[in-house]
Amino acid sequence: MFAEFETFIRERTDLSDADIEVIRSLAIEKIVRKKESLLHAGEVCRYKMFVSKGLLRTFCTKEDGSDYILQFSPENSWTTDPESFDKLIPSVCNIDALEYSEVIMWTKEDFNYLFANIPGLKAYTQKLIVQNMYVVRQRVLSVISSTPEEKYDEFIKNYPNVFARVPLHMVASYLGVSTKTLSRIRHAQLVR
Amino acid sequence: MFAEFETFIRERTDLSDADIEVIRSLAIEKIVRKKESLLHAGEVCRYKMFVSKGLLRTFCTKEDGSDYILQFSPENSWTTDPESFDKLIPSVCNIDALEYSEVIMWTKEDFNYLFANIPGLKAYTQKLIVQNMYVVRQRVLSVISSTPEEKYDEFIKNYPNVFARVPLHMVASYLGVSTKTLSRIRHAQLVR
Repeated sequence: MFAEFETFIRERTDLSDADIEVIRSLAIEKIVRKKESLLHAGEVCRYKMFVSKGLLRTFCTKEDGSDYILQFSPENSWTTDPESFDKLIPSVCNIDALEYSEVIMWTKEDFNYLFANIPGLKAYTQKLIVQNMYVVRQRVLSVISSTPEEKYDEFIKNYPNVFARVPLHMVASYLGVSTKTLSRIRHAQLVR
Repeated sequence: MFAEFETFIRERTDLSDADIEVIRSLAIEKIVRKKESLLHAGEVCRYKMFVSKGLLRTFCTKEDGSDYILQFSPENSWTTDPESFDKLIPSVCNIDALEYSEVIMWTKEDFNYLFANIPGLKAYTQKLIVQNMYVVRQRVLSVISSTPEEKYDEFIKNYPNVFARVPLHMVASYLGVSTKTLSRIRHAQLVR
């Protein structure tokens, strides 16, 4: 499980073997079955997580029972609830597995240690936060300005490996579009 | 104009007088009249900007001529197009002034110098990026999950000092709700 992470991080940083070994020594490997939860809203998110295999979902449930998906996390991506993790406050979101997944986790204490002692990891993490900000800003813009058709096309273009693996109602709940609208769009595209 | 910035930054950091003096020596002070542009889509955003007075707007215009507001920046807030500024690529957004404004600007080169040489400013900037990420994630969640009524209420609660200063159609264009819907909500609230 750590092998996938090691490949991933070596491609993006110039961490030494010793650095990797320290990171490994603090990593918690976890198998998550489909539908199993990693975080419930109201709990503090105690881990920074790397998905080495599978697909996680970060979602919120409103009082009326409807779900809204903030993030899909396929293999080779990071996830956490950043505000809950950083400030040790209850999370407003849930994280669960949409497929059998393998996840590597670090506690806040351990990640802080790594962050403070491995400059290459610190630089990488900061770059990741900034890149994440670009993506989330673009997402805000898309959600407020794009038509449902544009949102659907962007999703397929940006997340082809997620699109093929999740039911349409989840794509709808990520895009903030009704499932009915998305079904209509998909049908129109299939016949055109 | 720099006085407002100095007060702001001293409240949030423990920068020395010498640090402040270096930051001041590289600052460009700019008066922006109402409706004047600071950035056109397609240009590289060359400045990190602090609004010491007034109100700026970051917005994108679609091909059909409709505007979508990504961000309002009232006094005592920062703005830039982060991806354009960081990577020197054309911006997809415009920035203009909704009121007479006073803005302090630093070029990328100068800001990089400050970032590298003033640890207190670096720590503050990194904290700001992380806080900004919390806000933008929350905004995504709100845009995809909230009803127009909830979006309107959240906006009034979170940005009372902006709400009172901008026309309703701009609030609509920030929330991703039609002006017609927002007028109906406002009317319903006024009479209840």
